[in-house]
Amino acid sequence: MISQNPVFVPGPTNIPEVIRKACDMPTVDHRANIFTEILHPAIAGMRKVLKTKNGHVFVFPASGSGGWEAAIANTLSPGDTVLAASGGFFAVRWIELCRLHGLNVKTIDSPWSNHIPLDAISRELESDRKGAIKAVLVTHSETSTGVLNDIGAVRSVIDGASHEAMLFVDGVSSIASMDFRMDDWRVDVAVCGSQKGLMLPAGLSIVGVSERAFDLAPSAGMPRFYFDFSAMHRSYGAGSYPYTPSAALINGLLASTHFLLDEGLENVFARHQRIAEGIRRAVEAWGLEIFAEDPEHRSNAVTGITVPNGCDSAELIRHAATKYEVAFGIGLGEVAGKIFRIGHLGSLTDVMAISGIAAAEMAMADLGYPVELGSGVAAAQEFYRGESRAEQKLAA
Amino acid sequence: MISQNPVFVPGPTNIPEVIRKACDMPTVDHRANIFTEILHPAIAGMRKVLKTKNGHVFVFPASGSGGWEAAIANTLSPGDTVLAASGGFFAVRWIELCRLHGLNVKTIDSPWSNHIPLDAISRELESDRKGAIKAVLVTHSETSTGVLNDIGAVRSVIDGASHEAMLFVDGVSSIASMDFRMDDWRVDVAVCGSQKGLMLPAGLSIVGVSERAFDLAPSAGMPRFYFDFSAMHRSYGAGSYPYTPSAALINGLLASTHFLLDEGLENVFARHQRIAEGIRRAVEAWGLEIFAEDPEHRSNAVTGITVPNGCDSAELIRHAATKYEVAFGIGLGEVAGKIFRIGHLGSLTDVMAISGIAAAEMAMADLGYPVELGSGVAAAQEFYRGESRAEQKLAA
Amino acid sequence: MISQNPVFVPGPTNIPEVIRKACDMPTVDHRANIFTEILHPAIAGMRKVLKTKNGHVFVFPASGSGGWEAAIANTLSPGDTVLAASGGFFAVRWIELCRLHGLNVKTIDSPWSNHIPLDAISRELESDRKGAIKAVLVTHSETSTGVLNDIGAVRSVIDGASHEAMLFVDGVSSIASMDFRMDDWRVDVAVCGSQKGLMLPAGLSIVGVSERAFDLAPSAGMPRFYFDFSAMHRSYGAGSYPYTPSAALINGLLASTHFLLDEGLENVFARHQRIAEGIRRAVEAWGLEIFAEDPEHRSNAVTGITVPNGCDSAELIRHAATKYEVAFGIGLGEVAGKIFRIGHLGSLTDVMAISGIAAAEMAMADLGYPVELGSGVAAAQEFYRGESRAEQKLAA
Amino acid sequence: MISQNPVFVPGPTNIPEVIRKACDMPTVDHRANIFTEILHPAIAGMRKVLKTKNGHVFVFPASGSGGWEAAIANTLSPGDTVLAASGGFFAVRWIELCRLHGLNVKTIDSPWSNHIPLDAISRELESDRKGAIKAVLVTHSETSTGVLNDIGAVRSVIDGASHEAMLFVDGVSSIASMDFRMDDWRVDVAVCGSQKGLMLPAGLSIVGVSERAFDLAPSAGMPRFYFDFSAMHRSYGAGSYPYTPSAALINGLLASTHFLLDEGLENVFARHQRIAEGIRRAVEAWGLEIFAEDPEHRSNAVTGITVPNGCDSAELIRHAATKYEVAFGIGLGEVAGKIFRIGHLGSLTDVMAISGIAAAEMAMADLGYPVELGSGVAAAQEFYRGESRAEQKLAA
Repeated sequence: MISQNPVFVPGPTNIPEVIRKACDMPTVDHRANIFTEILHPAIAGMRKVLKTKNGHVFVFPASGSGGWEAAIANTLSPGDTVLAASGGFFAVRWIELCRLHGLNVKTIDSPWSNHIPLDAISRELESDRKGAIKAVLVTHSETSTGVLNDIGAVRSVIDGASHEAMLFVDGVSSIASMDFRMDDWRVDVAVCGSQKGLMLPAGLSIVGVSERAFDLAPSAGMPRFYFDFSAMHRSYGAGSYPYTPSAALINGLLASTHFLLDEGLENVFARHQRIAEGIRRAVEAWGLEIFAEDPEHRSNAVTGITVPNGCDSAELIRHAATKYEVAFGIGLGEVAGKIFRIGHLGSLTDVMAISGIAAAEMAMADLGYPVELGSGVAAAQEFYRGESRAEQKLAA
Repeated sequence: MISQNPVFVPGPTNIPEVIRKACDMPTVDHRANIFTEILHPAIAGMRKVLKTKNGHVFVFPASGSGGWEAAIANTLSPGDTVLAASGGFFAVRWIELCRLHGLNVKTIDSPWSNHIPLDAISRELESDRKGAIKAVLVTHSETSTGVLNDIGAVRSVIDGASHEAMLFVDGVSSIASMDFRMDDWRVDVAVCGSQKGLMLPAGLSIVGVSERAFDLAPSAGMPRFYFDFSAMHRSYGAGSYPYTPSAALINGLLASTHFLLDEGLENVFARHQRIAEGIRRAVEAWGLEIFAEDPEHRSNAVTGITVPNGCDSAELIRHAATKYEVAFGIGLGEVAGKIFRIGHLGSLTDVMAISGIAAAEMAMADLGYPVELGSGVAAAQEFYRGESRAEQKLAA
Repeated sequence: MISQNPVFVPGPTNIPEVIRKACDMPTVDHRANIFTEILHPAIAGMRKVLKTKNGHVFVFPASGSGGWEAAIANTLSPGDTVLAASGGFFAVRWIELCRLHGLNVKTIDSPWSNHIPLDAISRELESDRKGAIKAVLVTHSETSTGVLNDIGAVRSVIDGASHEAMLFVDGVSSIASMDFRMDDWRVDVAVCGSQKGLMLPAGLSIVGVSERAFDLAPSAGMPRFYFDFSAMHRSYGAGSYPYTPSAALINGLLASTHFLLDEGLENVFARHQRIAEGIRRAVEAWGLEIFAEDPEHRSNAVTGITVPNGCDSAELIRHAATKYEVAFGIGLGEVAGKIFRIGHLGSLTDVMAISGIAAAEMAMADLGYPVELGSGVAAAQEFYRGESRAEQKLAA
Repeated sequence: MISQNPVFVPGPTNIPEVIRKACDMPTVDHRANIFTEILHPAIAGMRKVLKTKNGHVFVFPASGSGGWEAAIANTLSPGDTVLAASGGFFAVRWIELCRLHGLNVKTIDSPWSNHIPLDAISRELESDRKGAIKAVLVTHSETSTGVLNDIGAVRSVIDGASHEAMLFVDGVSSIASMDFRMDDWRVDVAVCGSQKGLMLPAGLSIVGVSERAFDLAPSAGMPRFYFDFSAMHRSYGAGSYPYTPSAALINGLLASTHFLLDEGLENVFARHQRIAEGIRRAVEAWGLEIFAEDPEHRSNAVTGITVPNGCDSAELIRHAATKYEVAFGIGLGEVAGKIFRIGHLGSLTDVMAISGIAAAEMAMADLGYPVELGSGVAAAQEFYRGESRAEQKLAA
């Protein structure tokens, strides 16, 4: 039985009614005009969401991690060197993927609770006189920890080092929830998934590609077929697709971009900021630690919360799921058992966020955490009351 | 735009996924077997929900109040006398309906905050030596106030007076949420609607009818066509329907009865008791008054809450809807502006209930009510924690 | 198991995707603005469908026949006289309803295979010197036979007799499929149902009411509550509803009126004319008789087809349903067993219509009817090819 | 606007109601039990559909062609040799994929209108004394032509040559529509997609893998991450998934396997045989040629039809889509313009099939093809009548 409670995993997220209905589309012929009439505006919408004027956007029927593979397979050759920050479970997975594909990966290691050390990136690039490093790989919002990296700052560091490396960004849990500026930051490949800020079911890996990265196809020696940018590009130009597309999900993507652009991207980001801040106030009121140490580098998509010594966050997650039918995110990799995560991206209201806080409080209390019932809720309420009122004044 | 928050009006209620899908049925031929295969088990299920072995169940395409009309139109004649308790907005509406149909209505008047005075009923019946009173009309759970009347006790009073009056019950907001025993209490007509405990959209008025009431058709002088029991009965016997039925909603009714019977009616009632008690604890923690004075006569479907002097409950409802996108019930009739109502029937989880409490707290705080943020939530959390755990022990 | 084949009963009709989704709406508070934002434009849309500028439109949660009851209950008193044409099963049902409500019904009898004899109406009205006849009741498209009556001509006859009688029209299977002009024809009450040309599930009875008919409420002596025009009117003005509305279906009605008005009413009517003519050509090619004798008085909603002597149309319908999973309409009342009906109103394509013709052919052949396989299909194909091409030329 | 007509492309296919609803699932936590409760029985169901007792089944969020990539990436190394039959558009695409991944592909070339020449396979294998050929790649039902290859016979040929080559089968348009015996035929990798006989939207590539093929992972030198069998296998064992799964589609897959197994696989195959034969009879009646020359090697999933000299099948497809809103399959690759395809796999009734035949007839007549209206329909009707009746006798 599926619970009527919202989910608080950091993706897949709660799906708004109108988007669910867009995804529930009868079969159409993907070789006919009707498909093009869905695909082309969906891509145009995604360009706006990515803040790119002319960047390519490719929509693969795949989970988000398919985009990681697409990024390197279309631009690099086995033996190439990339520089990658390793501070989180998903960052580490992307590195693993690179290595499995024969890349030479230099990693920037740092504690998972911290954002990427920009100076370390700078040092690596400056010492790379021969330009061996072909690309810098960074995760924008690290879903496993709730740490937010500053992509604009990474771009400045690359520019500061006068290095030619491309910039590849895992924006899976940031894009459509937090400001992402593909053109301003000159991101060469931006990877996102349908099941996060886009509020769709999983199943689409959407990849933004700069002209520079796109043009590397002829020299990129990685084998590729399914995740080939050029084949996708040729097909789009012909109003078609290189294989059978997930037409219904693409119709959902079209609805999602309408949904986001109708609200206004800056309003969407402000809403995520507000919802997230309420969650963070609740954690403070509980007397627990937010895993991401630096307040300036916390994601508005997900908050990792360190459980008290002696507690097992996996037990907490199981208990909340079993007794209260509320899903939170577990700790992954090296923080397994140590943190739990509240996902707060996508389509959430203040009231839904509070229900998650309340459920976490109950579950923690049941397991003997030193948390006062209602304390986190009250802190979030106080914050949301003020913020929402402010919005109304502006609107009036 | 439809909010993702649950609704807290006392009907229509939040619709579980599986029931929504059952209602979203493609067109079928209602004169073919497929319709009978939906209708007959739906009726059989409703019999179990009503706790009647052989009572008739008629499913009218109508809102719940159509059942009020059916009750009298099939059993009485203009000029007949009925005895009706008037303690609530919906009770008064039924009385109005009776008068519009030419009945002579004796009313038992009592404050809306109180249940029906059984002794007054008793006195009326005992003084009615000639048996002029054909029926006693009682509302089980008065949706406008949150007062619960004891139908079994009303039956005892009728029996105690050795009176032949029939017993007609408005069970719109009680049936499928609180114990209702059509056979044990010898209810002659039980009226319910699809949009309450049955968790369906509005559009079906379901009426349980005793053999005695059914047999009155030939002598009942009220004009009737649409709400005619006999036509319905004849059609059902032939596997058909006297006019075009709401087949999709009836398919939903079938799913709803499965849903309820799978959980077990007593478990459904216990869940409503638990959810309701949490809400009541919250109101106490707020320092506000529950409108229904007697703790023994409070409905588990809805709680009316008296707002502090000088406050306007209609403003509160508007504010909660506008700022927090949460719908509560307004005060109706003589308690307009004085109470607001939290609907807590149908498909609600503890966590959803808490989200309603939290929204009410924020809205009250915004409007200057002397309510501490988080206080009601904490009281409900404390209660739900204990109760849910108890359930788990039983289940283990 | 629900078949994937379209239905060919003359209502409920096949529901277009976009309308099904509009009907599958989550619960909203019907006392909040969101409901008014659905109801008011739905009514405005229905006014356009009815071609009335200022007529009242009331939307009852009921099957179509609830509208028959509403028509008389709000305008007449027991003992009043009405003149009603009796030429079909549903016409007879409405007469039965009138008699059950104490009206004195003068009937114009004529063979079911023929339209109403206008001269008989004329004679009755002219001989009614005292103006005893309060209303003339006519069925526009008689769903049980496929006969179309000319409402404009009935209006002329009433005017020609200088009679003050109101004009009540059962437009259940005509409105939204064939031209209906409430204002031009000065129709006083127009009854329609959601499940026909409006392409919705059954469950709404929509009634158009002239100012003159509406103003009769104070003097109309019929008891009424559920189907009361005045209560509906007062509620609408206050942005509310006299009882719990079928909000989801009303949302569907809004979508339906958009659907129809986007296509353009005259295009909708032309489409019905084209689809119907294809069906009629098929019947001719089969060598069977269309039950409605006069080609000028055949409904574009449904075609009744006389089965050969010795054949039982009920067997045919059962066989088609069982073996081919295709639902046709049975013969009702005095034509039971003698005709079967192909419903062709609502949302049908040429190709769907042909699939119905083909299924009927197979079923008839199986039962030994002297019908050549493919003959009706070919006739319809030939017609549709030419007509659709013509449309394209216009569009080009 | 989406047409209400069925689609006749050879995938994606028409989706039955119950499967569409299963795919329209609210968000669930894919790291919780609820996901395992969907995934594991879906896989168990797929095993039955593939007729494998212990074969691995992996469900990738991808289009069918992702399965081609998975097949080779997990079992082979760059430079390895495979033997592949090239007789159709999709066969050629798989070969292209192999070459892009550095494989040495020996092709068995034959006219697209013919099935694979078994003797040529035999010769290649027998002359491969050193066992260079690691795998034989065959398309079971070639979707682009309607030719069916006999996989059991290919297995016999491999065995007859005493060759160790693995057998990889593209079963995208055969599996779940025609008999497929993974264990009996000792298929090492069987590739299927969700959007064909499984009647789901596109988006899942389901791959059946023999133990032998699975065990090759350690030595398979192809880079892989997204399509990695071992990662999938490890995750399944832990009740999880290596990345975010398409949970809703997997829920649909569960529903699809129930649907198929409830009907009975042999009944499903017989139904496809019957529907296909009706289509073939229609083509004969038109006097046109079925592209697949050998009647013993025609697919029951799709029929390719050669258009008369001077006709352009692409124009026919466009015309049918534009004027009749019916989608047929175009000619692909070397048969572009020369054939059109009627897809008849998945969930189709006799009546739906006839509607496709009728639409094709009209479109052909419009474009001056020498085809008699109704002729194909009549031939199909005659066939379906007899076959369906036979079924009924058996059932009785």
